[in-house]
Amino acid sequence: MTTTGARRALVVGTGLIGGSLGGALRTRGWHVTGLDADPARAARALELGVVDELGPGLDATIAFVAVPAGDAPGIVGTLLGEPGRPDDLVVTDVSGVKSPVVEAVRHPRFVGGHPMAGSEQSGTEGADPELFVGATWVLTPTLETDPAAYAAVAEVVVSLGADVVALSPADHDRLVAVVSHVPHLVAATLMNAAAEGAKADGALLRLAAGGFRDMTRVAAGQPNIWPDICAENARAIVAGLDRLLSDLGALRDKVARADRAGLLHLLESASTARRALPSSGTRPDHLAELRVPIPDRQGVLAEFTGLASGLDINIYDLTIAHSTEGPRGVLTLLVGQDEADRLRKAIEDRGHFCTVIELA
Amino acid sequence: MTTTGARRALVVGTGLIGGSLGGALRTRGWHVTGLDADPARAARALELGVVDELGPGLDATIAFVAVPAGDAPGIVGTLLGEPGRPDDLVVTDVSGVKSPVVEAVRHPRFVGGHPMAGSEQSGTEGADPELFVGATWVLTPTLETDPAAYAAVAEVVVSLGADVVALSPADHDRLVAVVSHVPHLVAATLMNAAAEGAKADGALLRLAAGGFRDMTRVAAGQPNIWPDICAENARAIVAGLDRLLSDLGALRDKVARADRAGLLHLLESASTARRALPSSGTRPDHLAELRVPIPDRQGVLAEFTGLASGLDINIYDLTIAHSTEGPRGVLTLLVGQDEADRLRKAIEDRGHFCTVIELA
Repeated sequence: MTTTGARRALVVGTGLIGGSLGGALRTRGWHVTGLDADPARAARALELGVVDELGPGLDATIAFVAVPAGDAPGIVGTLLGEPGRPDDLVVTDVSGVKSPVVEAVRHPRFVGGHPMAGSEQSGTEGADPELFVGATWVLTPTLETDPAAYAAVAEVVVSLGADVVALSPADHDRLVAVVSHVPHLVAATLMNAAAEGAKADGALLRLAAGGFRDMTRVAAGQPNIWPDICAENARAIVAGLDRLLSDLGALRDKVARADRAGLLHLLESASTARRALPSSGTRPDHLAELRVPIPDRQGVLAEFTGLASGLDINIYDLTIAHSTEGPRGVLTLLVGQDEADRLRKAIEDRGHFCTVIELA
Repeated sequence: MTTTGARRALVVGTGLIGGSLGGALRTRGWHVTGLDADPARAARALELGVVDELGPGLDATIAFVAVPAGDAPGIVGTLLGEPGRPDDLVVTDVSGVKSPVVEAVRHPRFVGGHPMAGSEQSGTEGADPELFVGATWVLTPTLETDPAAYAAVAEVVVSLGADVVALSPADHDRLVAVVSHVPHLVAATLMNAAAEGAKADGALLRLAAGGFRDMTRVAAGQPNIWPDICAENARAIVAGLDRLLSDLGALRDKVARADRAGLLHLLESASTARRALPSSGTRPDHLAELRVPIPDRQGVLAEFTGLASGLDINIYDLTIAHSTEGPRGVLTLLVGQDEADRLRKAIEDRGHFCTVIELA
């Protein structure tokens, strides 16, 4: 079925993330074409209504590549070079490690992405059009990224309900090693140690209360994505594990020598930090709009959004109004009213002009 | 207020666990007296209706000591030696490490206990009479434990909806180090590392998705109980941390040398084990009753329940019918029908007589 006039997207890979993306885009008025190497999965996506049709989607203006990390660079490259596609086709992906794909593709109209939305579901059956609401979605523009391409991806991402965090590919990979990859590997290790112990003593797992269940929940997920993640993000994961080994070694010594004050301090810091962990998906009541004329210079958009991320300021919406006379335009950023002045100052410190409008 | 004819319990310490216990006992028809070193907390417990009255509860036949671990041995000892209390007063506690309190008290009418029910709540305000429903509640009888005292505690525990697991104090401490203490310390360590990283890069915690939140949730809990736990269970915790350090070191090397097969195996084992983790609080549809005449020998009751725990068989109810002619009696154990034969065989292998009645 062709929906005349609708914006048209291509989703390559119609598993959990691709299917959720298709459903989310359709809900928001897009016409979505699905493409999958597995014909059964593609058919199921059509049946579940998360895509409008199957095919190459040559008329799509944006393509989401939601395939295993190892396959992403090849597919992204093919899409960007394929005859018959629009000259301004924008491509983004969803793989969990960004440096390898961004470095392999190196194209102004490719914007690396990582929606940080998980689900204990897997496969097309688990697709959920609301999966991204309130989620953090990292985009990794580089100095070579076309600002219009970045803005196109960011606009879609915020329209799906996610909060954009712009980071360099290397920063993304280092940070996810700390908050995602290393914790996941630790969860698996704790689970294996408990399962091993349970062989000797059947009662062990019956003592596994809520805390243990919480800590090991992620270990139930898909094992087969992890060799790729570990290979692609090896350096940051090894650094994270080394840090953890050192921290746990120090903790072990505190327990062994009954350093009560040291242990209390460690647990108090952790408790304070955990309670202060920002809850995802909450938006402030009062928002402000920052308007920044964008100069004709590559990478400037990535610079602004990177600036916001570095200041720990959430961007709740992002639009770019292009000038009819060329690549200049006006960037509009929606942030919390309490944060607006901090971000304006940072933007002005970089020599740009910025106005703030407080919204009622 | 005195409720004539009601069974009478004393709860010492009216915080989260003591308050929940008081409420749970009252709901099940007990008259509950509360005692707390902190008059404000005691008054609040009375106000919230989790105890019937405040006072020494001299007429109580069972006392639950729910105070910080370091205070438990002294209070238990006092209760068991106090003039004016019944000769058959049974005392149990709730502290999370069992060897120190059990060894310090060494009394036939003290049965160490550990309800493995947590709550993100704390204090009397968080008291919940249904906190123990479906929870595992470890009891740690020893060879010196009076079977009648053990049965009295176990009966109450199962009546509150918990599943009894009988373990030696040393086994309990070793196992909780693996499934509770070490994971808790790891959660705190991961949280601290992330908080530290966030100082250098404000975006870090915004990448903390559901998995990280799950893994660090326990770290938000009360820090002040942990120096005691670490001191009392130091040996098992250090052993658990050494094991973890060794496992994580091996994992680190697998990542560093890109051992894809090794990583996949590790994550597959963990996924399989996590999916197989018994869900707490589910009872089989078909139950069976095992009846065992209990010979006049110390420790025999602990032997039977320990046997069940070792075979990973849940006991859903436990009653003991005493003979009028002395300490002999008949023990009734309620277990899943599928498990009944396995337990009967184990009991018979030990030279006891056992009958099984399958319940409709």
